[in-house]
Amino acid sequence: MQSTVEKRSDRKHRQIMQAATKAFVAEGYDGTSMDEIAAKASVSKQTIYKHFSDKDHLFTEIVLATTQQVDHVVGLVANTLNDSEDIAHDLGRLGRTFVEVLMAEELLQIRRLVIANADRMPDLGRSWYEQGFGRILAMLASCFRTLAEKKLLTIEDPLLAANHFASMLLWIPMNEAMFTANNTPRTKAELDRLATAAVRAFLAAYGARP
Amino acid sequence: MQSTVEKRSDRKHRQIMQAATKAFVAEGYDGTSMDEIAAKASVSKQTIYKHFSDKDHLFTEIVLATTQQVDHVVGLVANTLNDSEDIAHDLGRLGRTFVEVLMAEELLQIRRLVIANADRMPDLGRSWYEQGFGRILAMLASCFRTLAEKKLLTIEDPLLAANHFASMLLWIPMNEAMFTANNTPRTKAELDRLATAAVRAFLAAYGARP
Repeated sequence: MQSTVEKRSDRKHRQIMQAATKAFVAEGYDGTSMDEIAAKASVSKQTIYKHFSDKDHLFTEIVLATTQQVDHVVGLVANTLNDSEDIAHDLGRLGRTFVEVLMAEELLQIRRLVIANADRMPDLGRSWYEQGFGRILAMLASCFRTLAEKKLLTIEDPLLAANHFASMLLWIPMNEAMFTANNTPRTKAELDRLATAAVRAFLAAYGARP
Repeated sequence: MQSTVEKRSDRKHRQIMQAATKAFVAEGYDGTSMDEIAAKASVSKQTIYKHFSDKDHLFTEIVLATTQQVDHVVGLVANTLNDSEDIAHDLGRLGRTFVEVLMAEELLQIRRLVIANADRMPDLGRSWYEQGFGRILAMLASCFRTLAEKKLLTIEDPLLAANHFASMLLWIPMNEAMFTANNTPRTKAELDRLATAAVRAFLAAYGARP
């Protein structure tokens, strides 16, 4: 019985989050009312307030929940790079995964919402970055440090190098997605071109010195 | 007489744009009404509609007006690089200027507004990018092509190389400004560190081959 109650509560929680995500993405934070979310989630406003104390908390939970989407990428970075025997190949594979995961439509929509509300919710923006993409960069930096110790890379500042790699890879498609809301997945050829160029430039800058 | 009328009209135009910019930045596009703008600009709503046919056009003019701020940077790129005798030094100087100009508070506020409204106004986002930062990149690419022809750089795709340079330079401070609305000007030491690292990595990737 207890477990059925919990499940029902979990289900309502998820239902509210899904309806609220759609509403926030479509109407923005200010344009979305708790009444609207209640109607879209088919629950009472009272039920929403039982799960989330106010709109701010609901929005925060929705935004931070998306940071879990990078968990497997963080793991993939570690698994791929720590014993890498072909850094160019493995960085290229990682690069393509970064673009696919980070350019997923829902994540881009949340990214635009975080930016739209950054002046009022700077701490949320910081937490979202640190718990999300920041963890990928930190793991990348940690692997770069290990590879530099093995003389397979030449890096003084691993976190800056991780940012250089990510920026060369993501700058073009991310700017386009941000400014034009064009979330159309890139073709495989475009992805390959961006990843190959970023890896080539990165290894020229940070590769092993003879 | 004619010129006095024109001047008064110009002054009102500017007055409306300044009041509207403040309102849009503070309240967002949706949160700003023409009534509010009229009150803040101390003009009648009728006067606003005489200058701008609707809120959409007023917003568009405000956003696109900021692209003029890059005019002198485009000129600076051409003047600095076309006859450059010390590419590392000159790229570093340009890099510091890029960060200063592109990280100016008003431009960052407009950037967040463009991103916040990108799903409804994708063409405005595209125009803003193409008429603004895109012109800096195009000029940078054109200079890189010239330098590559003189064998001072080794570049196959000048526009991609221009994006690599800009991305390594701007990625860290731009992300922070976008997600946390932290527009605090960087210290000179931080600027120097970002510019020096970007130039070093860029020249390792695209410098002259012996």
